[in-house]
Amino acid sequence: MAGPRRGDARGPCPIGRAIDVLGDRWTLLVLRNATIGMSRFDEFKADLGIADNILSDRLRKLVEHGLLTKRPYRDESGGRTRNEYRLTEAGAAILPVLHAMYDWGATHTGPAESTAPMQVVHRTCGEPVEPGGDCPRCGVHVTREEEAWVRPWRSPEAIPLAPAV
Amino acid sequence: MAGPRRGDARGPCPIGRAIDVLGDRWTLLVLRNATIGMSRFDEFKADLGIADNILSDRLRKLVEHGLLTKRPYRDESGGRTRNEYRLTEAGAAILPVLHAMYDWGATHTGPAESTAPMQVVHRTCGEPVEPGGDCPRCGVHVTREEEAWVRPWRSPEAIPLAPAV
Repeated sequence: MAGPRRGDARGPCPIGRAIDVLGDRWTLLVLRNATIGMSRFDEFKADLGIADNILSDRLRKLVEHGLLTKRPYRDESGGRTRNEYRLTEAGAAILPVLHAMYDWGATHTGPAESTAPMQVVHRTCGEPVEPGGDCPRCGVHVTREEEAWVRPWRSPEAIPLAPAV
Repeated sequence: MAGPRRGDARGPCPIGRAIDVLGDRWTLLVLRNATIGMSRFDEFKADLGIADNILSDRLRKLVEHGLLTKRPYRDESGGRTRNEYRLTEAGAAILPVLHAMYDWGATHTGPAESTAPMQVVHRTCGEPVEPGGDCPRCGVHVTREEEAWVRPWRSPEAIPLAPAV
């Protein structure tokens, strides 16, 4: 979202408009993490190793663009009120972009160290599925609500995708 | 591609690795334009309104990452040898990312001025198709080779997608 603008945010090309909102490394990483349920400033910061001012800027822009919504919560440790950030319908709707990046990244890039690969699975049965496709075991289309991700380098547990609020 | 790194380029998450390469406004705009056949520095510069140093940087990185390949051509007006940039297989393979951004941008953003919308069409028959889907007229799957884009605010002509080299 940095750099000079060419007016693409309101331009005629729908790809250009999407790029204007989504075409930023930190924005996409925040949205990936929000997709698997991350919502709090300190969680994003710890996971992404992102500077406070950059994270604040990206969260603010994502709220402005209507992809995240900000809600207060009571911080139990400090007793203070803080904000958490949840995906809206428009934010949850970037899942096909993440799926396409998953496919491209899995095919055209590789990890420095060998790890068990990420899997997209059907929550109900745990079967690996093609992102956006049908469950080969159950024969049903796997909706966003029925999708989970296994990221073995973090945990063997399947993480259900966060619902839109 | 600017900003501090968290090592995602070679990290375990395929989405993070893809974001490391693709998560940049200018990178994505250059790839969009290369997808519809743009290949020369001056063409990208004129269409995107991008500064020379930023365009040089993004083209260099896309060549380094293996998404574009650089080939010399003879500039007819000046008689000098210049470079043109063509999509590799890995560069052409980002089409599903552009399709997903098209869908998101068409649904969740809007142009400032009313324009006839972009259409993805089947080259053979000209029928509009769902990006990545089947042709409703011909009943066949529309491959990348058979896909064209109509961008009515530029031209009524359907632009075939550039082949990978």
